[in-house]
Amino acid sequence: MDNNVIWRIVFNSWLTLICVSSIFSAMVKAGGYADRIAWVDLSSRRVDYQEVDEDEAYKFIGGRGLGGRIMLKHNVGKDPLSPENILAILNGPLTGTNVPLNGRIVAVSRSPLTGAWGEAHAGGWAGAAMKWAGFDAVVLTGASDKPVYLVLKDGEVKIEDANGLWGKTTEEAYHALLQKYGEEMRFYGIGPAGENLVRFANIMHYGKGAEGRASGRTGMGAVMGSKKVKGLVILGDEKNMPKPAKPEEFEKARKEALRKLIESNITGPRKGGLSVYGTDVLMLPVNEIAALPTRNAKQTQFEYAEYISGENLRGTILINTPTCHACPVACKREVEVKDGKWKHRSEGPEYESIWALGAMIGVGHVESASYLNYLANIYGVDTIELGNVLAVAAEATERGLLKDGVRWGDADRFAELIRMLAYREGELGNILAEGCARAAAKLGDPDMAMAIKGQGIPAYDPRGLKGFALTYATSNRGGCHLRAYTPASELFGIPYKTDPLKYEGKVDLVILLERLFAFTDSLDMCKFSTFALGPEDYAAMLSAYTGWDYSVDDVMNIGERIWVQERYFNQLHGFSRKDDTLPKRFFKEPSPSGPSKGEVVDEKIFQKMLDEYYQKHGYNMDGTVPEERLRELAII
Amino acid sequence: MDNNVIWRIVFNSWLTLICVSSIFSAMVKAGGYADRIAWVDLSSRRVDYQEVDEDEAYKFIGGRGLGGRIMLKHNVGKDPLSPENILAILNGPLTGTNVPLNGRIVAVSRSPLTGAWGEAHAGGWAGAAMKWAGFDAVVLTGASDKPVYLVLKDGEVKIEDANGLWGKTTEEAYHALLQKYGEEMRFYGIGPAGENLVRFANIMHYGKGAEGRASGRTGMGAVMGSKKVKGLVILGDEKNMPKPAKPEEFEKARKEALRKLIESNITGPRKGGLSVYGTDVLMLPVNEIAALPTRNAKQTQFEYAEYISGENLRGTILINTPTCHACPVACKREVEVKDGKWKHRSEGPEYESIWALGAMIGVGHVESASYLNYLANIYGVDTIELGNVLAVAAEATERGLLKDGVRWGDADRFAELIRMLAYREGELGNILAEGCARAAAKLGDPDMAMAIKGQGIPAYDPRGLKGFALTYATSNRGGCHLRAYTPASELFGIPYKTDPLKYEGKVDLVILLERLFAFTDSLDMCKFSTFALGPEDYAAMLSAYTGWDYSVDDVMNIGERIWVQERYFNQLHGFSRKDDTLPKRFFKEPSPSGPSKGEVVDEKIFQKMLDEYYQKHGYNMDGTVPEERLRELAII
Repeated sequence: MDNNVIWRIVFNSWLTLICVSSIFSAMVKAGGYADRIAWVDLSSRRVDYQEVDEDEAYKFIGGRGLGGRIMLKHNVGKDPLSPENILAILNGPLTGTNVPLNGRIVAVSRSPLTGAWGEAHAGGWAGAAMKWAGFDAVVLTGASDKPVYLVLKDGEVKIEDANGLWGKTTEEAYHALLQKYGEEMRFYGIGPAGENLVRFANIMHYGKGAEGRASGRTGMGAVMGSKKVKGLVILGDEKNMPKPAKPEEFEKARKEALRKLIESNITGPRKGGLSVYGTDVLMLPVNEIAALPTRNAKQTQFEYAEYISGENLRGTILINTPTCHACPVACKREVEVKDGKWKHRSEGPEYESIWALGAMIGVGHVESASYLNYLANIYGVDTIELGNVLAVAAEATERGLLKDGVRWGDADRFAELIRMLAYREGELGNILAEGCARAAAKLGDPDMAMAIKGQGIPAYDPRGLKGFALTYATSNRGGCHLRAYTPASELFGIPYKTDPLKYEGKVDLVILLERLFAFTDSLDMCKFSTFALGPEDYAAMLSAYTGWDYSVDDVMNIGERIWVQERYFNQLHGFSRKDDTLPKRFFKEPSPSGPSKGEVVDEKIFQKMLDEYYQKHGYNMDGTVPEERLRELAII
Repeated sequence: MDNNVIWRIVFNSWLTLICVSSIFSAMVKAGGYADRIAWVDLSSRRVDYQEVDEDEAYKFIGGRGLGGRIMLKHNVGKDPLSPENILAILNGPLTGTNVPLNGRIVAVSRSPLTGAWGEAHAGGWAGAAMKWAGFDAVVLTGASDKPVYLVLKDGEVKIEDANGLWGKTTEEAYHALLQKYGEEMRFYGIGPAGENLVRFANIMHYGKGAEGRASGRTGMGAVMGSKKVKGLVILGDEKNMPKPAKPEEFEKARKEALRKLIESNITGPRKGGLSVYGTDVLMLPVNEIAALPTRNAKQTQFEYAEYISGENLRGTILINTPTCHACPVACKREVEVKDGKWKHRSEGPEYESIWALGAMIGVGHVESASYLNYLANIYGVDTIELGNVLAVAAEATERGLLKDGVRWGDADRFAELIRMLAYREGELGNILAEGCARAAAKLGDPDMAMAIKGQGIPAYDPRGLKGFALTYATSNRGGCHLRAYTPASELFGIPYKTDPLKYEGKVDLVILLERLFAFTDSLDMCKFSTFALGPEDYAAMLSAYTGWDYSVDDVMNIGERIWVQERYFNQLHGFSRKDDTLPKRFFKEPSPSGPSKGEVVDEKIFQKMLDEYYQKHGYNMDGTVPEERLRELAII
């Protein structure tokens, strides 16, 4: 039976289930999809193509939402590193158009790091190029018996032998492929870490103007590696940019969005925010309020924060500020250390990365922190989890649990450890390759891991930014700042101001942002758009593009659907309230300095917040989603 | 009586004394002098001009040697900050020609920091421009009652009102004068520190291609400030370059010197030495052998040395490598931190400066160390003494002797302290403005000062570089690496290799280098020329230029004369063997790490070296110079 036929049957069977759905308006003909998904079975080397189901697309948009749909229907109960696990790579309906900040790609699967929902986006041009090559999604199933890579071009996927590429760093592989496919080629693939099944291996994107963007979190690179796929070579031509269903309305909505982005103090060019200092503009304000996890979160302020700040990075090693597709912000950094032991030229570290490879491990130098970030990129590991696991190694060393480990701030040794874990060299390399939670347990104290659901925290301390206590604990992909970015409110007053040290109002804020982000991640648009745009903008652009009619309420309701779908996916893998918690350190060890001095996350208040959060999402008090709620949201 | 006449009488009276002089050949007619010295009496605002005495010039060359002659005859027993103290600013016979590495200027006086011989050279164009403006020397006597500056042009010195400049930083004053005098103007003057009689104020040189060279040591800026002179505006035209007496021989000697400099691995362009990494190329090798005084010499290795190394400076903040007049090496650094709190653009720190404002005070970041160097330059203080006095403040703080002092590595606080001492703000500012020796005594423990004869050490620890034990102790201007640069031998094998940790052979090496440097400082050529040239080159160039006949022996003998003349100047101010010693730390506290671990300077061996050193110089065992020796050397 043709895969396409199976797909149709699957979608029709969902349709029969989706009978109660109060949140949708009447459907209109779709406009903005490439209408093509490739199912690539690596075991049999067979590729099948199918069209995107319009109803499905309407309800789950694309990208993260559509990826979630595929996971829920096809990928429950699979061992993450087995051939059976499915890895879907998607863009969104707006990807590859000319609306601002649309150029993203996302990989979804079951995470080998957490066993939960796995998802990781990257900027650059890969998503747009994939659209121009004719795809909304490429779904990888099975596993090849020898290394391969995929070539996406003109609506076809070809499987090519990758023997000469296997073992190469991401950068080397990119440059080798560049020779063969020319400068319009975009590469989206793995390094040695992915090949060696490092549980937090990432998928890197290289291409003209993008010398190292990462689909970083949840170990999607290890899943790709387990299938013996080095990566995707994407050959898309911009002249294949899909046309909006309602060109005039679309242009109007696009211009309005662009105006807001340009006028914003955060996203606007030359406004002193992201475009001037990059994401690392956050280093100083987060340190100032004492919410910068330092030395494995034993501290909340880093005495050398200024040296790894966006201001100092700009002042020293910055050489260029490249953009992603269709972006006027240009928050990316291209950096160069021209000489000495930290010599490198590459895409520079994001705030999260320079925190992870800076404050979190006690490295207070922009040169070496940027170099460690470069190593993470070429070996292909998530910088955030990397910082967490290196911090565990340093804490274990300090406490005498690990001999010949590493001292805080010892960038030379950290560089060695990165190589060791990427290649799984020796016992220590193998321990660290498992991520912070498993490494901490192995080294004698699981509480050394600043992990939620098995994935390490990002660059914000919930003792100083209380919104993140709830965001982190309830994140469906483990420790993560991108499920609901509450500092937008606590630091910048977007969409409204709340006190970073208070708990009040944070539940509503988290839920609002979870929904909004689930929607933008499905478009797939950059989250930084939310600093300037609201649901009305997304609704207007998507409506004009697809020809369908999305309201502001639709945006939020669809966001809820996508969000709860992922929670349900986790629930099917045994996750519940017991997993919605934080590392003990945040409950027990007060912040030692600054405005957050003396603060912990109050455990009683935290549990009350969780109750309120569950209630407002319509969950049971054990954190599971009632069947009735799943039906109401058209998830089952 | 005309000053010129007095000068003639003085010179003639010397001639009558110089009766025994076995070391000279027959005299030939002079060639290479501007033949003009300006005596500027600031009290009466009178300027007198006289010619250089040929015999004097033959025996003492110029620059440092001729300056010493002026000091010995006119400036014994003066209070350094009184109007009576004389400040002489000189170039040398080769200055302003086209021989390589000739472009230096020197200020000499009695030092307000040490009470001993004061002398400080600077590179750039000021020395050459002074020659082209018609001067071998400008001698400042007396003191003005209100701020003035001097304009040197076409053989005339004019005294101009400086009210609008007084209080300005060196950089501000330069830019103000640039407006008035145009871009060919060279400024050689002081900042607020010199005005405020900070005992280690320097004289800074700014001009096209030289955005901050320093006559750094021994407080010559305070002497200039005590005379209410903001500085010299030097308007020299290169077309006034003096002609050599023997043009063909001169050109031959010049080309040979240039060839050697270019072929040298240390001075040659693009050879990986000074021209690629600047003087800060020394940071890593000196740290490697554990001879880098760190945190006030409590340690001998700095864990963050690489970050303040020439390699890292080049890799990050370097934007240009300007040269001095007639120099193919281009060891200077122009640096820029483009953004953030350490923002500055200026001439970059030398090795000594980034050590002083880096390792010595625990600052391990190139950006802030370079910024502190920038502050030192604009306020006008010697970076080496500054590092020493800031290190005393940090050690005093650590030991509880100073409240509200400064922690090691706290660049923000160090920046405040630099401003405070430059303006003598408050009690602490006033204590630190006195230099490390006086500050340590005031703060309760004189042994906290790493000072010799009242001036702090430079960037080499004698526990790991034994030659410097003797060089430092016997230096006639206090703690100094430029009297006899023994690491040339211990690190680079120039003129021959000796073991850095051994004492053997160091006495001869010190004496050899004292003589050679005294001669090159009198030419006045850059010391880096000695990495590639030998006495034969200096003799050949000077002989062809002056038309006089200098042999290799003459070079060394004249070097000895100039050296001993300075020692005698000190002796007349009470200095003797008791002052030829080192800070206790080097005798008592073993180096804690690296190849020098466990090493001290052995006090018994040190005293034996001193005996041998005195014997070989022909001194008495109490360190004084016998009258007979002074006569033999034609000093008295």
